[in-house]
Amino acid sequence: MKRTLGTCYYPEHWPEEIWEADARRMADAGLTWVRIGEFAWSRLEPTQGNLQFDWLDRAIEVLGKAGLKVVLGTPTATPPHWMVEKHPDMLAVDVNGHPRKFGSRRHYCFSHEGFQLESDRIVQLLAERYGDSPYIAAWQTDNEYGCHDTVLSYSNAAKKAFGLWLARRYGSIEALNRAWGNVFWSMEYASFDSIDLPNLTVTEPNPSHSLAFRRFSSDQVVAFNKRQVDIIRRYSGAPISHNFMGRITEFDHFKVSDDLDIATWDSYPLGFLEDRVGATSEHQRLYARQGDPDFQAFHHDLYRAAGNGRWWVMEQQPGPVNWAPYNPAPLSGMMRLWAWEAYAHGAEAVCYFRWRQAPFAQEQMHAGMLRPDNADAPALIEARQVRDELHDAPDVETSPAPVALIFDYDADFAWATQPHGAGLSYFQLVFEAYKALRSLGLSVDILRGETRDFSGYQIVAAPGLIYMSQDLKKALAESNAEVVLGPRTAARNADMVIPVPLPPDMPGLEVTVARVESMRPDMPMPLKGGGNLVSYREELEGAAGTFLELEDGQIAAMRQDNLTYVGGWCDGLAWKRVFKMLCDEAGIETFDLSGGVRCRDAGNIRIWTNYGASPSDTPAGRIDAAGVLFERL
Amino acid sequence: MKRTLGTCYYPEHWPEEIWEADARRMADAGLTWVRIGEFAWSRLEPTQGNLQFDWLDRAIEVLGKAGLKVVLGTPTATPPHWMVEKHPDMLAVDVNGHPRKFGSRRHYCFSHEGFQLESDRIVQLLAERYGDSPYIAAWQTDNEYGCHDTVLSYSNAAKKAFGLWLARRYGSIEALNRAWGNVFWSMEYASFDSIDLPNLTVTEPNPSHSLAFRRFSSDQVVAFNKRQVDIIRRYSGAPISHNFMGRITEFDHFKVSDDLDIATWDSYPLGFLEDRVGATSEHQRLYARQGDPDFQAFHHDLYRAAGNGRWWVMEQQPGPVNWAPYNPAPLSGMMRLWAWEAYAHGAEAVCYFRWRQAPFAQEQMHAGMLRPDNADAPALIEARQVRDELHDAPDVETSPAPVALIFDYDADFAWATQPHGAGLSYFQLVFEAYKALRSLGLSVDILRGETRDFSGYQIVAAPGLIYMSQDLKKALAESNAEVVLGPRTAARNADMVIPVPLPPDMPGLEVTVARVESMRPDMPMPLKGGGNLVSYREELEGAAGTFLELEDGQIAAMRQDNLTYVGGWCDGLAWKRVFKMLCDEAGIETFDLSGGVRCRDAGNIRIWTNYGASPSDTPAGRIDAAGVLFERL
Amino acid sequence: MKRTLGTCYYPEHWPEEIWEADARRMADAGLTWVRIGEFAWSRLEPTQGNLQFDWLDRAIEVLGKAGLKVVLGTPTATPPHWMVEKHPDMLAVDVNGHPRKFGSRRHYCFSHEGFQLESDRIVQLLAERYGDSPYIAAWQTDNEYGCHDTVLSYSNAAKKAFGLWLARRYGSIEALNRAWGNVFWSMEYASFDSIDLPNLTVTEPNPSHSLAFRRFSSDQVVAFNKRQVDIIRRYSGAPISHNFMGRITEFDHFKVSDDLDIATWDSYPLGFLEDRVGATSEHQRLYARQGDPDFQAFHHDLYRAAGNGRWWVMEQQPGPVNWAPYNPAPLSGMMRLWAWEAYAHGAEAVCYFRWRQAPFAQEQMHAGMLRPDNADAPALIEARQVRDELHDAPDVETSPAPVALIFDYDADFAWATQPHGAGLSYFQLVFEAYKALRSLGLSVDILRGETRDFSGYQIVAAPGLIYMSQDLKKALAESNAEVVLGPRTAARNADMVIPVPLPPDMPGLEVTVARVESMRPDMPMPLKGGGNLVSYREELEGAAGTFLELEDGQIAAMRQDNLTYVGGWCDGLAWKRVFKMLCDEAGIETFDLSGGVRCRDAGNIRIWTNYGASPSDTPAGRIDAAGVLFERL
Repeated sequence: MKRTLGTCYYPEHWPEEIWEADARRMADAGLTWVRIGEFAWSRLEPTQGNLQFDWLDRAIEVLGKAGLKVVLGTPTATPPHWMVEKHPDMLAVDVNGHPRKFGSRRHYCFSHEGFQLESDRIVQLLAERYGDSPYIAAWQTDNEYGCHDTVLSYSNAAKKAFGLWLARRYGSIEALNRAWGNVFWSMEYASFDSIDLPNLTVTEPNPSHSLAFRRFSSDQVVAFNKRQVDIIRRYSGAPISHNFMGRITEFDHFKVSDDLDIATWDSYPLGFLEDRVGATSEHQRLYARQGDPDFQAFHHDLYRAAGNGRWWVMEQQPGPVNWAPYNPAPLSGMMRLWAWEAYAHGAEAVCYFRWRQAPFAQEQMHAGMLRPDNADAPALIEARQVRDELHDAPDVETSPAPVALIFDYDADFAWATQPHGAGLSYFQLVFEAYKALRSLGLSVDILRGETRDFSGYQIVAAPGLIYMSQDLKKALAESNAEVVLGPRTAARNADMVIPVPLPPDMPGLEVTVARVESMRPDMPMPLKGGGNLVSYREELEGAAGTFLELEDGQIAAMRQDNLTYVGGWCDGLAWKRVFKMLCDEAGIETFDLSGGVRCRDAGNIRIWTNYGASPSDTPAGRIDAAGVLFERL
Repeated sequence: MKRTLGTCYYPEHWPEEIWEADARRMADAGLTWVRIGEFAWSRLEPTQGNLQFDWLDRAIEVLGKAGLKVVLGTPTATPPHWMVEKHPDMLAVDVNGHPRKFGSRRHYCFSHEGFQLESDRIVQLLAERYGDSPYIAAWQTDNEYGCHDTVLSYSNAAKKAFGLWLARRYGSIEALNRAWGNVFWSMEYASFDSIDLPNLTVTEPNPSHSLAFRRFSSDQVVAFNKRQVDIIRRYSGAPISHNFMGRITEFDHFKVSDDLDIATWDSYPLGFLEDRVGATSEHQRLYARQGDPDFQAFHHDLYRAAGNGRWWVMEQQPGPVNWAPYNPAPLSGMMRLWAWEAYAHGAEAVCYFRWRQAPFAQEQMHAGMLRPDNADAPALIEARQVRDELHDAPDVETSPAPVALIFDYDADFAWATQPHGAGLSYFQLVFEAYKALRSLGLSVDILRGETRDFSGYQIVAAPGLIYMSQDLKKALAESNAEVVLGPRTAARNADMVIPVPLPPDMPGLEVTVARVESMRPDMPMPLKGGGNLVSYREELEGAAGTFLELEDGQIAAMRQDNLTYVGGWCDGLAWKRVFKMLCDEAGIETFDLSGGVRCRDAGNIRIWTNYGASPSDTPAGRIDAAGVLFERL
Repeated sequence: MKRTLGTCYYPEHWPEEIWEADARRMADAGLTWVRIGEFAWSRLEPTQGNLQFDWLDRAIEVLGKAGLKVVLGTPTATPPHWMVEKHPDMLAVDVNGHPRKFGSRRHYCFSHEGFQLESDRIVQLLAERYGDSPYIAAWQTDNEYGCHDTVLSYSNAAKKAFGLWLARRYGSIEALNRAWGNVFWSMEYASFDSIDLPNLTVTEPNPSHSLAFRRFSSDQVVAFNKRQVDIIRRYSGAPISHNFMGRITEFDHFKVSDDLDIATWDSYPLGFLEDRVGATSEHQRLYARQGDPDFQAFHHDLYRAAGNGRWWVMEQQPGPVNWAPYNPAPLSGMMRLWAWEAYAHGAEAVCYFRWRQAPFAQEQMHAGMLRPDNADAPALIEARQVRDELHDAPDVETSPAPVALIFDYDADFAWATQPHGAGLSYFQLVFEAYKALRSLGLSVDILRGETRDFSGYQIVAAPGLIYMSQDLKKALAESNAEVVLGPRTAARNADMVIPVPLPPDMPGLEVTVARVESMRPDMPMPLKGGGNLVSYREELEGAAGTFLELEDGQIAAMRQDNLTYVGGWCDGLAWKRVFKMLCDEAGIETFDLSGGVRCRDAGNIRIWTNYGASPSDTPAGRIDAAGVLFERL
């Protein structure tokens, strides 16, 4: 498959006189795609009803005529000030009850009906006008849903919508009170519209309440996005995408993607390392200029799943950014490496954000492909190298992976509601399993929680699925794969209540979790043979066989037929041992990758990357610091 | 005396069909007491005036007929949602001015008159109905006053009540302005009703103002509790209790207890270790599965004093809890050890919280004596062991202690108002002195600040009593005990103003505190002979003799006749040296206990406990990890 | 020049009977100055319009007749409670939108017109009554503008005033939108009065917006102060001062000082070390009882500049204070040393705060020259020593310094708006350069950013001047001094937008900053020859010569003629090397001072001070711990 490059461009930021030169320079650099428009509402409609689309017409034409394919974004992430004056209550409200004011972006509550109608209107206007433009090759809805913690809003609009959502889900208030166990602490409600949002309570709210609010909030994002998609589809046949943001888990990206044609995400390896990877300080120091070796790969696999195989990097970090606690420059070569990592995982396109560094406003210290003075920045130079390599390199295809890993947003909502031990999160749990798989040199498919067909996989890992439906239990038990479960598998029913019989209550697996505990991070429980359970642990009992033991003789993991249950939070070595044993049994080849070297199979080639700051040896030969190596398989 | 066991039960959480089996199983396990009802308001009165007491009638009868004695709780810690809708301003308000919303518990302001009347009404209804029930053997008012930081409320109701409280205390606004020194920074008020609550000020408020607000807030709890007690007494002769929570010091537990018959407290050794003991990280790691060796003992002694000898553990941790940052499982044997520690200190009853783990709502991860699937949990098994031991063991009586330690809530309010050095607290000061006494193997009586008769004690320690009335000074000076004073003794008058002559101005003790200072914790001031003053220090002058010296020759403590004044915050070794010297002089036997071994005299026996994770030697023989040893005296 | 001593006195705190004895004792101790009145509004006007000036008449007369010169403060930092009841919206509003309530001090918003008129009124009353008093020798406006974070207020009054300020600055809303780049994220405004304050935005606001708000807020302080000055001048010829507070940088002290005759500041070396110096924990431990060796000196030089040579220490720490996290006692001798440090830098007067320790209210734990019981406190004893030394010592004059260092409040606003890396601040940058200069034994003049005449200086350092006007660039380039620029020099235009050509765009210096980055503090970039760039770094290119190189061969600093540009944040050693090289070239004598020894030239003498806790050797001989040494030059 042909892999492509692109960039993000803001014609409204620059004098019209330079658009043409910009477009030509993009094309010359080998860029295929240019995304525009997603923050331009105040220029499209400076005052209410005063529509100014001419400049956009001309910008699209200039870009299109230069041979570029345009991705047109809807501008709903940046409602203009006049709209906030018209709907003062459209602002989201933070957990302390403070409105989140105008002055940056994403200052809207997904539940506000007035804003929903404004969104419909502007999307309709754009779709009508550009739906059949020959230059519009794709659409993007809004921008980075959930960025800046914007999914959960404690507004009156959200309260009202939450009541309606609950009424639809539970039918009667008695059913809700029963399902949530509201008899506890006399928390029973008399009607759906009397239910408060779960903020500012004296101590923690009922976890059933919190989880419901998280699910509702996720559904509001899905519904908001679907309104835009439905409108666009009426006027345009071009594929529709959204650019998800790394490690935003407050809404279900799979469900949003169900309404899209292409899933894309915004990949900022250095920014993420600082504030989202969850790494130790030492790891952050080691990879400060390269990014975590697995974080991007994880998201690549995630969005390949979300997009049913069609996915892009819509924004690729081009140099230092402005928004992390510290913003170092990437090691020379990383902008190329990141692109190849994306292609190795099946990206159709990698678009660098942004074309020219803006000298003004919030992102003035965010690098671009051009410097503010129009000189080439390193990203442009490395993009040209990728362009040449794409021309010369063998085709990059997406290999079927032997191993699957389930990632389920609903499970993340449940863990966020109830981490049980300080700092524990579902994302971190799954990501650490992923890191272990990848450090074994394995290619991985990420699967959503709704998956029922596991054919083709030899190993399926499903850690931390705190709620598991009967049919998923059945599908896993009956699959041909070795299935890795636990911790907390099926620990709650759909309403966040402990089921009886006790978890996991899995057909074909005689294991019961008798008791759970969370521990200080400095109290690891060592496993016989290496590795530890840390921070969280379950006491297992039952007739299944012992798979792993603690040094003190207690059971750490059990196994029966194709089902393995891990009773705790594994550290990296423990995960690696679990997967290595199962791979060896299944005859799956593994490597023992250390430092920053990783690989991914991509059709007839295996693509090696080195996130380390010094050269390293791989089974395919020596690889430079920040290097990429293509091994024919 | 006969020591008993009990549990806490929520019939409203379970199908009525299983109540009888539950009751029988409790009785079989040797339980005497069952506490019920304290969170059931929404089931007793689902909508306003719609009273539903039948189910409670039946529950009491089922339990009583099984031979259990019922403790009936008033449900005022959990006002139903309809009441909050009726009185929206009944919610407490936090220090930032945000109402503390419905959705958990304790969502009321003690000063709200509407809620006070609702409380009167439901208590009256319960007392009328069950006042002469043969099965109701005790009462509990409300639940854990002050838990979740619920004493200080910055509501309008509190502002109004505070003004009235001040008017009663000071008589005229001129007297208040004078007493507080409001001339400073022009803080003078024109009337009592214009006095603001001391939150959200630009910089810290006047300490006299803050202290008055803390005293007022404490009095509001006392008054609220007394209303309930007065009503119950009109209908019932059964003893009345309240279950205090560990290390809650925002109100005066002695004054609340003055209106009760029995003081009880809720003992969660592992939860407390995580977030209330104030221990080092290493200490927390060492005792993560056992709890601090002294924290429970301190509270046992405290509530024995509060209850005038009658006290219980109303809630005993039965396994992992849900609410601490980390929630490990106790070492096997600890649920038994904790019970014996309580009996050793004179507890009449130890009730495990709760009978069966609730699968729903906030405490779903809080262990019970039964698992959610009805299987025995470790607490039940260890409780049965205690039952058998109680049957076989010698009688446990409360020995008179040779050493007394004063704990005064008003002093805690004053230190909280003005710690002077970051992190210093009165509770911590007294608790560290207690730890030193207990590590010497001493049995200790805790005395309230109002005590005037010290006969029987050879040593009385009264550290940190920042205000000391003339008659207490006199009583201590004239007692036959060796009295240990300082730091900050009598450092302020009753209105939080420095007295002249300078502190401590103690009859019979020629010591003056010339200057005070607080230091970084990493600047210990070493004592000649071992130990340090840390964090806080006073320059002493006067004709009294030098008792301890710093290595640089400055005076650290002085002594005259039976009065010893310590001019600083002692570390553990310094306290131990002070007490050891006084014990040696007085001929009191001491041990040098290290690790987790402790002892308490209990009539004719000395009860040894080992909080360590490995066996240890004691003067009475070898003791297992988590073990209990009975030594005949 | 004659150097003098003084104190701060609050007659309203003490019985009138003791005023005379106090005054006599002050005079006997050699004090010249006594400041009074600055918090007494509630005593001057207990209720609205009820003026009570008689007591102040008498106090001034008592003090004056004892031979003391009175500094009279306006009481506007402490508006009485009745005024807040009259103008409830006069309170400042914090960043979270909460009003900052009555109950301490500085509870007013500079932008509130009603309060401005109240301030005018009370100042007029004081000026009329005391303008020609023979005893009033100086005035002080208000007290410590900006203390307790009181410059930035998010009130409605501030919003309205900000809109007017912006209208004056930009003329048209289109100009503002263009200057700020509000096209970015559709942040365009339709009118000046619709512009929100930059708090509670979803993510960071536009830096142009934030910077404008900071400049506006600074101007509001300047304007408020000028109203007071203008009124006083109509009635009095005595010099007018304000007492600035250490490391308060939210408003421009130079601009406020332009309206004053004398700049004064409040020097609390130990309190500042704890919470303002920004030192490592180890440094804080080492100097806990002495204060940072350079922090006071920096401010002395700063206020000498602000006052055009006329400056005082209006409040000198006299012992332990009450307000820092930890409040240790100074080493014996420090109260003398601090006074001599001030004189060495040209202070006309050093006034100890306060005369007698107040036993009540917020500062009851703040030492005075007298203890609460009237005994001499150490400050009084050391002040007497200074009095005697002043009598005997040679005259202390202000030497011209060979080195100048620019400090510009507007640059601090810009760095605060956009630190780029966590924890970076302009003050810290300049202060670290200052420390390096002082550790070379150099006397330094601080210059404001508006300086254009650099004659007389051999070296001018101007680090971090993020905006630099064309005429300042020209003045520096054309000066005869060696000029040290960078990092971030001229990195933004006046509206916080990156200029093109890229920075620094300095005439005569062919250097371009191609890219900038911020790094974790644990990623130092070592320089060849010693020292590091840390936390922030720039890639330099251009024809200028290389001045410093990183160990990896990259350029760290460049130089061309008299202009040196440093491309990053230097650590102490790096700064020291830069300045040492330039001094050696220029033939300026330097020392290599280590530990706590420092010196300052003062006319014909060099004054050595030792902030260390042990004696040390200097080129002028041995110096005691906490000692002062006078070397004749």
